[in-house]
Amino acid sequence: MQIAVFGTGRIGQVHARNLARMDGVALSHLVDPVDSPARAMLAETTGARIASPEEVFADPQVAGIVIASSTDSHADLLLAAVAAGKEVFCEKPISLDFATVQRVAAEAEAAGVNVMMGFQRRYDPNFRAVRNRIADGASGSLEQLVMQSRDPSPPPVSYIKTSGGFVRDSAIHDLDQARYMTGEEIARVFALGACKVDPEIGAAGDIDTLAITLITQSGRMIQMSNSRRGPMGYDQRLEAHCAHESLFIDNGPQTDIRIATSAGEMKAPPQDYFIERFARAYADEMVDFVAMIRDGKAPLATIRDGLEAQRLAEAAIVSIKTGQPVDLSPNWQPGAI
Amino acid sequence: MQIAVFGTGRIGQVHARNLARMDGVALSHLVDPVDSPARAMLAETTGARIASPEEVFADPQVAGIVIASSTDSHADLLLAAVAAGKEVFCEKPISLDFATVQRVAAEAEAAGVNVMMGFQRRYDPNFRAVRNRIADGASGSLEQLVMQSRDPSPPPVSYIKTSGGFVRDSAIHDLDQARYMTGEEIARVFALGACKVDPEIGAAGDIDTLAITLITQSGRMIQMSNSRRGPMGYDQRLEAHCAHESLFIDNGPQTDIRIATSAGEMKAPPQDYFIERFARAYADEMVDFVAMIRDGKAPLATIRDGLEAQRLAEAAIVSIKTGQPVDLSPNWQPGAI
Amino acid sequence: MQIAVFGTGRIGQVHARNLARMDGVALSHLVDPVDSPARAMLAETTGARIASPEEVFADPQVAGIVIASSTDSHADLLLAAVAAGKEVFCEKPISLDFATVQRVAAEAEAAGVNVMMGFQRRYDPNFRAVRNRIADGASGSLEQLVMQSRDPSPPPVSYIKTSGGFVRDSAIHDLDQARYMTGEEIARVFALGACKVDPEIGAAGDIDTLAITLITQSGRMIQMSNSRRGPMGYDQRLEAHCAHESLFIDNGPQTDIRIATSAGEMKAPPQDYFIERFARAYADEMVDFVAMIRDGKAPLATIRDGLEAQRLAEAAIVSIKTGQPVDLSPNWQPGAI
Amino acid sequence: MQIAVFGTGRIGQVHARNLARMDGVALSHLVDPVDSPARAMLAETTGARIASPEEVFADPQVAGIVIASSTDSHADLLLAAVAAGKEVFCEKPISLDFATVQRVAAEAEAAGVNVMMGFQRRYDPNFRAVRNRIADGASGSLEQLVMQSRDPSPPPVSYIKTSGGFVRDSAIHDLDQARYMTGEEIARVFALGACKVDPEIGAAGDIDTLAITLITQSGRMIQMSNSRRGPMGYDQRLEAHCAHESLFIDNGPQTDIRIATSAGEMKAPPQDYFIERFARAYADEMVDFVAMIRDGKAPLATIRDGLEAQRLAEAAIVSIKTGQPVDLSPNWQPGAI
Repeated sequence: MQIAVFGTGRIGQVHARNLARMDGVALSHLVDPVDSPARAMLAETTGARIASPEEVFADPQVAGIVIASSTDSHADLLLAAVAAGKEVFCEKPISLDFATVQRVAAEAEAAGVNVMMGFQRRYDPNFRAVRNRIADGASGSLEQLVMQSRDPSPPPVSYIKTSGGFVRDSAIHDLDQARYMTGEEIARVFALGACKVDPEIGAAGDIDTLAITLITQSGRMIQMSNSRRGPMGYDQRLEAHCAHESLFIDNGPQTDIRIATSAGEMKAPPQDYFIERFARAYADEMVDFVAMIRDGKAPLATIRDGLEAQRLAEAAIVSIKTGQPVDLSPNWQPGAI
Repeated sequence: MQIAVFGTGRIGQVHARNLARMDGVALSHLVDPVDSPARAMLAETTGARIASPEEVFADPQVAGIVIASSTDSHADLLLAAVAAGKEVFCEKPISLDFATVQRVAAEAEAAGVNVMMGFQRRYDPNFRAVRNRIADGASGSLEQLVMQSRDPSPPPVSYIKTSGGFVRDSAIHDLDQARYMTGEEIARVFALGACKVDPEIGAAGDIDTLAITLITQSGRMIQMSNSRRGPMGYDQRLEAHCAHESLFIDNGPQTDIRIATSAGEMKAPPQDYFIERFARAYADEMVDFVAMIRDGKAPLATIRDGLEAQRLAEAAIVSIKTGQPVDLSPNWQPGAI
Repeated sequence: MQIAVFGTGRIGQVHARNLARMDGVALSHLVDPVDSPARAMLAETTGARIASPEEVFADPQVAGIVIASSTDSHADLLLAAVAAGKEVFCEKPISLDFATVQRVAAEAEAAGVNVMMGFQRRYDPNFRAVRNRIADGASGSLEQLVMQSRDPSPPPVSYIKTSGGFVRDSAIHDLDQARYMTGEEIARVFALGACKVDPEIGAAGDIDTLAITLITQSGRMIQMSNSRRGPMGYDQRLEAHCAHESLFIDNGPQTDIRIATSAGEMKAPPQDYFIERFARAYADEMVDFVAMIRDGKAPLATIRDGLEAQRLAEAAIVSIKTGQPVDLSPNWQPGAI
Repeated sequence: MQIAVFGTGRIGQVHARNLARMDGVALSHLVDPVDSPARAMLAETTGARIASPEEVFADPQVAGIVIASSTDSHADLLLAAVAAGKEVFCEKPISLDFATVQRVAAEAEAAGVNVMMGFQRRYDPNFRAVRNRIADGASGSLEQLVMQSRDPSPPPVSYIKTSGGFVRDSAIHDLDQARYMTGEEIARVFALGACKVDPEIGAAGDIDTLAITLITQSGRMIQMSNSRRGPMGYDQRLEAHCAHESLFIDNGPQTDIRIATSAGEMKAPPQDYFIERFARAYADEMVDFVAMIRDGKAPLATIRDGLEAQRLAEAAIVSIKTGQPVDLSPNWQPGAI
């Protein structure tokens, strides 16, 4: 089966290398308008050839397309791929504009083409196993979900400015987890946001620290604590308190070494950063993308999940601005506030 | 120095035994209207004698009084002790009625008598060391505080009915920690409450599951997750995310044994219950109570702290009922809602 | 029941205070020839009175005697107590001279008086639970036992000189554990010893670092690694590998706090030192001493255990000196080597 | 640079796939006499072609050869590769016959061709970092080294019979670590061996349980505890006690999930088996093999290290048989015993 990857930046390389090492899959094309050394090396190591979007869409051998290019290109490429009848894997977000997200999701669904979204955390063996254990009923009813999500350090302000803001750019992963872990839609959002880490982020109109509370339709309580700065590095943890057991997802340490002195016992800091922490998740994503194309297997994250996570992000932003909880309905969308 | 203990129930016994083993302190009297075997054994082992409240208040040798009797007797005993010029240690709460709490606190403060409140968690070596480390500036500015608080299992409904409810009875310890850890007053409270554990608790008009968000006056974010049921037992943890480091208080396990099989590696469950988990804290409380009497040393928890923690509890209850955040001011009190 | 404590030094105080706080037990006498402030304070807090050995032995009310005086007085006091018909708890060692140990053990056993030995580690909840779990068969056959035993730092050379040496003074606790954990006698000892920590210890004719291998009569393998210096402090751990599971006894940390930065996650160092680490064990020892007197309950460590542990120590010393393994028999004793 | 892999079994596949994904390296040939589906799939995914040994040795483009074929072919292939002027990576052991190992090592060293040995544990990030930290002096002088090494379960007896026995087949990795961690030769070996796990192993003339003590030339003490059965699975741990700090290498768990109930807190079992546990080590081995060819960089394990580890294995076997310690010299070899 032939698959093409659009974008040869950091995440595009991850997907391309994962596809190249899979038995029975051929990474056929790499699409990137910029002729960089990274693009050349990636082509040499994987054996894929550099191509234009048009070539890829026109090639009947290409069964699937991975969109890992810049965010502003996602919506158009996705619709073009759908039009060409290719199955699609698209990195989040579809667009920073919620109306565009709604429109693209509607068109893709109307076309009946499978679109898988890049919420890689759903494919992480830890998050996935905890979610499955809860869904299987082994843990008893999930009552309280608490998530911690911190990046090692804030990105440059230049990135902040095009990112869509902390909620849409980063907390969206945790908002998606809220739906994934509970298997439910969210009924209510109350969010606090502030700029505590880097005043330049505040000057750019964004925030860097969050405390979000969600209530699911059945009344489960979810608390998220997010920051652009993790004192220990990349801090991504979850605890799920159920009727029979409490489940914890810890940070995986960089090594399995401990060093003990009279000052205490030191363990290694968490894997740094998402490329390392979620290496296995990215690999498993591609396995499922191939399984979706080959066998019609439903992926863990669809374009509908992309839409709903972005709806939650918009609601959280409204709550931060108004200081009030926001009640959600299936068609809720942000108005002028 | 002579000290009398009122109440020979579970917590009264803890205080009496701790006082009896202190060098230079004499546990002189035990006051309890009920002539139980526990009262007799306690008197025999500690060498204290059974007395009436009047005897104790009238005895000029008695320098301090520990009130560990039933909640409904706290307010009157506290005021009587103050009137007799005795320094007081009083278990929380002063009263389940907020107006009474305000009145007693005002009278005690007006009388100029030292009153120490039984928020033992402030004396726990873990909570205390983390609080001091943050207060000393070693951790950098505290930005986010996340607390987990679960009891092993819900108490009988008969207890629930006289407890004042989950927030006033139990979550008040965590609300107190919010002020203790940050060294600040709380500006805003948003609380979710539900009955998820035991329908009988709901039938009795109470809740058993909480998710509370606080904002301090300077804008620090605090999240608390509370339940009457801890799947692992008594689950009392805290994480404090500061500019330079993240601090964690874990549950202390019952043993230091691990058992490993191909199913995994099993560690012992947490110490169970508060008498064990906070054994050292209760001992250190009495040390400080004696130091307050002997040297005028300020205790970690005063009657003012008791009042403010109860104000937060009342505000949380209002928020749960209205579904809206509650803004606090120094004189805020619950109205008719 | 009245009990007397001989010796008001560090360990005598521990035993005296533990006895004083037990319901139904009276600490009646303290015996110590030196009139120290510690002795006076201990008498005041516990309510015991200072007495001579003769008074205690002659007092028919005294049922039990705790010998926690200096090592060179143990043998004579033990025999005098036995002669007076008192049941005895004796701190290890009975004597540094193995022939004396054999003689005292034989006399005490002939007299039929119960003598309990102060191998407190047998009463530690961790060691005890692991031993019982193995003995109950829950773990399957024990095959390999690995022990780590390190003191925080070497004692002064003045202590070393009267201590009997590292093996008799310290490693004897681990040698005793070998018998306690396996429930077997030892068939063979191979020991390495060296002076690696403090050259003054070597100059005093002692060693400070050990690697001992034992084989039990049924062929179980035991490895011990001992040092007078623990880089992390007091390091006392054990792992038992059985047919069905591996059991681990870890050091209990001083606090339940973790501090995480980008350098790693720091846990508190181990409890320091044996008074803290084995506080519960010392208390439970006295409970069992009282139960031995009151109910004839067999203690976890008898004078026979004291004798056998010292035999192992002597054999290890011979192995270190000769560089060869030593085969043990029930009557083995060190000859001239 | 072109590299050929001999052997397409489990470990040959690992090396081949690692080479195929390296930038700037071409996996050119696969050599395996058996035409299996695994060989075909490996050739398809990596793009390498199936070849005979002769073709590979004759091809001037091939710079390096990885020998991962069956043990009995190692010695001849290694010498043939050396004769052809190819640099070699060879899985351990060179041969189960010590005289052959000595002869091959001597010939390879005489030819001046670089030969790297497959002691992958030296490349494990944990073992490597601990070794480097000690070698750099950061930990102070290493005094005691304690290793645990257990396989998940014993292999079939058919494997045992051709394996060379537990010491030569498995404990050799730990014996190699003893030299790697201390940077020293071993002066003395005392080993206990027994059959405790599977009577069939004993019937086949082998053992399954070991307790080995080593002393280095400078007097460092090393203890190893090995078993063919790990109750928890693949149990590979090390602790190094140095003057300033104690270093620990733990098993990496299969997941970062903990599940807590009132029975305790369960962590995932160790990664299972060596392919998973040492996945990174195998990848880094190939990186260094390429660096050896390209830049002449010394690998972490040479053919000389292979020889010395096997010498230790032979000495341990002698000690087990005689029950006595064995003193080593540079030319020690097993005689008739």
